[in-house]
Amino acid sequence: MARANPKAVVLLSGGLDSATTLAIAGDEGFDCHALSFDYGQRHRFELEAARRVAASQGAAEHRMIDIDLRAFGGSALTNDIDVPKNHPPGAIGEGIPITYVPARNTIFLSFALAYGEVIGAGDIFIGANAIDYSGYPDCRPAFIKAYEQMANLATKMGVQGRHITIHTPLISLTKAEIIQRGLKLGVDYGLTHSCYDPGEDGRPCGHCDSCLLRAAGFREAGATDPLLKLFP
Amino acid sequence: MARANPKAVVLLSGGLDSATTLAIAGDEGFDCHALSFDYGQRHRFELEAARRVAASQGAAEHRMIDIDLRAFGGSALTNDIDVPKNHPPGAIGEGIPITYVPARNTIFLSFALAYGEVIGAGDIFIGANAIDYSGYPDCRPAFIKAYEQMANLATKMGVQGRHITIHTPLISLTKAEIIQRGLKLGVDYGLTHSCYDPGEDGRPCGHCDSCLLRAAGFREAGATDPLLKLFP
Repeated sequence: MARANPKAVVLLSGGLDSATTLAIAGDEGFDCHALSFDYGQRHRFELEAARRVAASQGAAEHRMIDIDLRAFGGSALTNDIDVPKNHPPGAIGEGIPITYVPARNTIFLSFALAYGEVIGAGDIFIGANAIDYSGYPDCRPAFIKAYEQMANLATKMGVQGRHITIHTPLISLTKAEIIQRGLKLGVDYGLTHSCYDPGEDGRPCGHCDSCLLRAAGFREAGATDPLLKLFP
Repeated sequence: MARANPKAVVLLSGGLDSATTLAIAGDEGFDCHALSFDYGQRHRFELEAARRVAASQGAAEHRMIDIDLRAFGGSALTNDIDVPKNHPPGAIGEGIPITYVPARNTIFLSFALAYGEVIGAGDIFIGANAIDYSGYPDCRPAFIKAYEQMANLATKMGVQGRHITIHTPLISLTKAEIIQRGLKLGVDYGLTHSCYDPGEDGRPCGHCDSCLLRAAGFREAGATDPLLKLFP
């Protein structure tokens, strides 16, 4: 009988980075258990994208957790604060942006840890990136390392000697490098969603930080964003 | 003008330990922002107890977060696994009990961290106890220390030099010492709920690990559990 692949939990937002992360985890030989959150995003396009991406990449499972970060307020992505537009390129990534959601990656990783403990997965993948999101404290390598140390003390698995690893394959890649990596692995970026402030049909606004980073990434990668064909 | 008290986030389950923790945080001069979770418990008595306790102790605020740990399964407290009964005293606390919820304290602390970041509270109180819950990996001092280190790297507050402290005032107390401490601070334990398997009216079963620990604690403390008068 063939030996089963090891299981991994992969955090999947439906954006470009997490879609690439899922493809990398699969390419590394893991059976991928995707985990998404409905955390009071102002639009549902991200979650629809997560479903499409999980299905297209053949995830073993895709679970969706409802959590209400709106209860705390504090970010443009979960409340009615205006999403900043048309930042000059140099300004993106400086300081802690208004779109930072307090403790978001900490919360997401904690659910991934619980999920991993239940299904027996000691490998957790997150598409954190320290280049484009340098302003987010919870996207830095030092945070990830500290989280991993904590995770190994927090769980039955860790206590019983099964090492828990937080994988961040994108952490030091530029957006262009992420896109190039994903294209090689066959990721269909037309299924992903990045915009912070989409139209009613899901059309990217083209002006928020996320749209600007995505456009610059495809430009530098020498590729065309398939979303531009879907929303000409 | 009088200087405002510092704010603290206090995790409040409605049980004996968290009620005592809330009283200690208040006694230390914090304005207490209590945080409870509806995580698919099999009964609602704990949450009702949390509301009563927060109100009786004059918490500045009490927030309740819905999270669905049932989605992952894996514990007697969130699923239809039988709660173990009438454990011989020596057996309680040995190994990792079936009532262990994967990554529960990690998840709870992560929401507390988010809440603290939004309201400007760098102090988080949790009633973790390494004596009676020695089988739970996430009740050990090493876990708490690792969590605190991670928290200071995870957040805007931490990055900006405001130290985040995870307070565990009960961590090395016996149940009897916890009760004695709480009684001195005026905690009304008749408002709390401990049983893992209560009757339909909230009556404690008297036979689960939690009921047995509570009864032994009151006995050793030389005090009478006021719940015995409410449920004669």
